[in-house]
Amino acid sequence: MWEQVRAEQPRIVAELIAFLRVPNLASDSADIRANAALLIQMLERRGVSARLLESPAGGPPAVFGELRTPGAKRTLVLYAHYDGQPVRAGDWATPPWTPTFRAAPGGLSDPIIQPPADDTIAVDTRLYARSAGDDKSPIVAMLAALDALQRAGARPSVNLKFFFEGEEEAGSPHLEALLREHAALLRGDVWLFGDGPVHVSGRPQVVLGVRGTLDLELTLYGPARALHSGHYGNWAPNPIVELAHLISAMRDREGRVQIPGFYDDVPPPSAAERAAVRTAPQTDDSVRRSLGLHRTEGGGALVGERVLLPALNLRGIAGGTLGVNAIPTEATASIDFRLVPRQRPERVRQQLEAFLRSRGYSVVHGDEAPPAAVERTRLVRLAWGEGYASVRTSPDAPAARRVAALLGAATGTAPVVVPSAGGSLPLDVFRRALDAVPIIVPIVNADNNQHAANENLRLGNFFDGIVVYGVLMGEGEDRPER
Amino acid sequence: MWEQVRAEQPRIVAELIAFLRVPNLASDSADIRANAALLIQMLERRGVSARLLESPAGGPPAVFGELRTPGAKRTLVLYAHYDGQPVRAGDWATPPWTPTFRAAPGGLSDPIIQPPADDTIAVDTRLYARSAGDDKSPIVAMLAALDALQRAGARPSVNLKFFFEGEEEAGSPHLEALLREHAALLRGDVWLFGDGPVHVSGRPQVVLGVRGTLDLELTLYGPARALHSGHYGNWAPNPIVELAHLISAMRDREGRVQIPGFYDDVPPPSAAERAAVRTAPQTDDSVRRSLGLHRTEGGGALVGERVLLPALNLRGIAGGTLGVNAIPTEATASIDFRLVPRQRPERVRQQLEAFLRSRGYSVVHGDEAPPAAVERTRLVRLAWGEGYASVRTSPDAPAARRVAALLGAATGTAPVVVPSAGGSLPLDVFRRALDAVPIIVPIVNADNNQHAANENLRLGNFFDGIVVYGVLMGEGEDRPER
Repeated sequence: MWEQVRAEQPRIVAELIAFLRVPNLASDSADIRANAALLIQMLERRGVSARLLESPAGGPPAVFGELRTPGAKRTLVLYAHYDGQPVRAGDWATPPWTPTFRAAPGGLSDPIIQPPADDTIAVDTRLYARSAGDDKSPIVAMLAALDALQRAGARPSVNLKFFFEGEEEAGSPHLEALLREHAALLRGDVWLFGDGPVHVSGRPQVVLGVRGTLDLELTLYGPARALHSGHYGNWAPNPIVELAHLISAMRDREGRVQIPGFYDDVPPPSAAERAAVRTAPQTDDSVRRSLGLHRTEGGGALVGERVLLPALNLRGIAGGTLGVNAIPTEATASIDFRLVPRQRPERVRQQLEAFLRSRGYSVVHGDEAPPAAVERTRLVRLAWGEGYASVRTSPDAPAARRVAALLGAATGTAPVVVPSAGGSLPLDVFRRALDAVPIIVPIVNADNNQHAANENLRLGNFFDGIVVYGVLMGEGEDRPER
Repeated sequence: MWEQVRAEQPRIVAELIAFLRVPNLASDSADIRANAALLIQMLERRGVSARLLESPAGGPPAVFGELRTPGAKRTLVLYAHYDGQPVRAGDWATPPWTPTFRAAPGGLSDPIIQPPADDTIAVDTRLYARSAGDDKSPIVAMLAALDALQRAGARPSVNLKFFFEGEEEAGSPHLEALLREHAALLRGDVWLFGDGPVHVSGRPQVVLGVRGTLDLELTLYGPARALHSGHYGNWAPNPIVELAHLISAMRDREGRVQIPGFYDDVPPPSAAERAAVRTAPQTDDSVRRSLGLHRTEGGGALVGERVLLPALNLRGIAGGTLGVNAIPTEATASIDFRLVPRQRPERVRQQLEAFLRSRGYSVVHGDEAPPAAVERTRLVRLAWGEGYASVRTSPDAPAARRVAALLGAATGTAPVVVPSAGGSLPLDVFRRALDAVPIIVPIVNADNNQHAANENLRLGNFFDGIVVYGVLMGEGEDRPER
């Protein structure tokens, strides 16, 4: 199948570029529906019957496609999401929705190029755009895989369904209602998730779980009006200082969360999980050096140990004004928790709120008015996201073994089997609503800057990914020749 | 003299408004020179010979004026500054350089008004604008005081000099060179500083000193590129977490600075200082309640105790992006130290840098390139301001006693004698360059929001302040009748 992909490279890349040009914040309804409409066209162009699925709870639509295979008894559902993380345009070297190519490996120091319009595109070429890595390229790869299968004279060996979500980066608040509403339509034997990066070594990987996630904006308050820091400094409590002490009390410098009870629900890795991670290449040292880190938190291996634990990340902090001599009125920390199996978001919420109360704070939520009798410096205002729990499929499960074997055959390399990604997908929602068996097969490069400025895709990963998805759709009947 | 001021209220207010309309960031050379040119006109209109004084080191000019009094043997120099703090326009209810009146006491909830164009302006009326409190209104009050003296048939009993600085809010980096260059011109027996607010009780006050100040922007670094917080969270060190722990280690929640050696140079208050603060009204509880503070740092009284100690204030913090799931590449804290006598800025710099090195950081300054062999997460980047030391005049000094007596006579109220303001002025520079005896007589309301958004002036304070400056210029020969 590799030859079929190579011959079509310029056309495939052109389809990806056209898709990346459409801005895709989940919060921007008009843009997100323009993406969905384009996806419907992309599916129908290939003979896949396609429609929008709306959630009774509102929010962006999902795009659903179905291609029945005569005689097939099993159904593979392919998942990816078409929305992207918010951007701060000023941080990007080139605009986030203007796809831009650069030669590798110098990254942003490489000149902007136009790749050749034939099959000689260099595999190290990088394509910069929001969602180039996360998560539009897997969508285009899935569709190109279907084309390549057909051009190779093969056809899917299973019924195929496509499910493209439109609010994954916003925490999927409307997804569960959508899945329940359309449960009959969405039934499948295995859900194949195309999201996240391949192993940092470049080896293919099968990811059998994800961490759960829970978002929080936490605001502490200082004086009712900003105060001259000279006249009042040393007397009026400073909300930045209070926030720094609170963060330090919540989480140490080794990643250990100090909220009482936080680890009560955290199970140790199973024997099968420990066996799987032992086969992963150890690349921590080179990654650490390339990122300029003189140490890592907790001292353990990234894939083998650290991401099997929960985490508390500070993704942003803001308070006062740099260079203005005042005690500010408030300071806000933006937090994302990463959860492991058995940690329920609602329980983590309770644990943190109990911890805050134990420190003397009065908790208010969202825009709720504070109790009249409570001084503002006693308040902590919390804006919680919905969050979702972690899911893992055992490395011993039959579907897990089958996908790993097919992936190894497709690529000629034993895949890295990862018990859980560090990142999050709302897989728990799929399990609860559809009893789905989720397996993740990522294709994009590990250094794709996903969620950040200058997100990018290495084109070699993209082309290899098309072959991988093609083989998984063909369930091994069609072997690539490379 | 009070009657002379009242009759002229509309004209005096109009002059203040015209002055407040001119934007006055020290960093904006064209604007700052427009302010200086206007000041020259305002002085010359009153027969004061006026000129710009440039610093050989560059920077904004000072405005100098001189009015000799035949036969006078003593010289009073009146100081104020015409530059203002930076603004974040979005935080202001009305634009910072569009002076706006509101009735009191509701503050921003009061409607915008036009005060009457006669002598019935309500004393509680507030005028909102950048520098309405800090520090253009004292300048206009000094000039109106001169007018009122003359209209009252009196005249100054001393030679008068005016010195209006243009970079006080920027830390006065060019001031010392300017003072040394023009030292002969600037000689005087007493320097009277019109800056800062009156006591929160509304009582007049004489302030005999200031805290020194030292600014710092401190940046810590995370990974070389922003990382997906799921895939790398719990492994890659997070610069916001590192910064929170560093801030917590530098300063506790009671205002105590934890940098080793920081208090070595801090003297206890003298007997005269302790006696002076005992006479100050205790208003901490009402101020605390009005600001919504459930506690104050360190537990001591604001004027009597806390501002006689040094302080470390967090004026701003920034890192990452609220709501974006990434481990950011850096985080910055913006700090201002407040210093007391004998604490030298250069020594505090050394103490903090030694503290950072003891925690394993490699210190770089400004835009300096880091050592090639040092990983970025080991770096701390420091951008120090020049800073200046604290100055105090003893409450027992003859000039201090005389000003306090005149102020009491002018207002009919015993003034609060404050050994040191919490805020900072570059008085140490005046002492070093000119051997000046500095005494501060503030006039503006304590709740003027100086340095912050919605800075404002209570007009009653302004009118009273004109009388106060008039009496001090007349050195008591002319008593107000109110």
